[in-house]
Amino acid sequence: MNTVELKCVTIIAEVILEKRLTEEVTRLGATGYTVTDARGKGSRGLRTSEWEGQNIVLQTLVGPAVAERILQRMAEAYFPHFAAVAYVENVQVVRGEKYL
Amino acid sequence: MNTVELKCVTIIAEVILEKRLTEEVTRLGATGYTVTDARGKGSRGLRTSEWEGQNIVLQTLVGPAVAERILQRMAEAYFPHFAAVAYVENVQVVRGEKYL
Amino acid sequence: MNTVELKCVTIIAEVILEKRLTEEVTRLGATGYTVTDARGKGSRGLRTSEWEGQNIVLQTLVGPAVAERILQRMAEAYFPHFAAVAYVENVQVVRGEKYL
Repeated sequence: MNTVELKCVTIIAEVILEKRLTEEVTRLGATGYTVTDARGKGSRGLRTSEWEGQNIVLQTLVGPAVAERILQRMAEAYFPHFAAVAYVENVQVVRGEKYL
Repeated sequence: MNTVELKCVTIIAEVILEKRLTEEVTRLGATGYTVTDARGKGSRGLRTSEWEGQNIVLQTLVGPAVAERILQRMAEAYFPHFAAVAYVENVQVVRGEKYL
Repeated sequence: MNTVELKCVTIIAEVILEKRLTEEVTRLGATGYTVTDARGKGSRGLRTSEWEGQNIVLQTLVGPAVAERILQRMAEAYFPHFAAVAYVENVQVVRGEKYL
């Protein structure tokens, strides 16, 4: 089975950011995304405060350049102000050329 | 800690396909699966239409041969007719021999 | 974009274990976690019984030593008694040094 290696970008953030973040990733080049409801606990920003509560897990399959733009944008515009986590991993996608 | 490298296969699809897809992966050799509710947006088939709405994320840990069969089956029987995403990644599983 | 490679540990278990497992991973060194509701089917323990029903997916980003401790603890204290799955994968995390 031919697959294409893509980046799966995962963003975990507060519920109120869902609309903003899905618009961001679309604007930055993602052709689709999946959002799941979750709950969690973590450290906010510079470890100065803890957060605990409802959040969302946003995932999108993108090429390396779009992944880079999304992570960059998260670090610049969200991490200083919001509790958020962003990470990327390599996945092998069926008909992955659709997402590039 | 000894772990076994397995394939984690992820299928994202419309909610109505849940029963069919869980039966498919079981028939193709998966010993178990996890289903999560999600919402999302993406391009359907040949980019001719967009879909947006409720979907499910189905994940299963399997050996390479079963993973291959699942991806093949998705590409042949589902991708031409349904909005669906399928990808695979390597994971290190505790007592992973159970899943082979 | 600088990222740090961390371990994403995933534990899938029965709903009743949520509190116990989130306390375990925190005690073993995780600085945060995310929990999602899911449903699934699998084989319990030595394949002697099947389970099917509501479960949780607990995920946490940690360094290699904490990942090892969590997997070890799962194998010793949970796998003999509960239906549970535990696996680990490498991910590239923005500001990942926060989780170490």
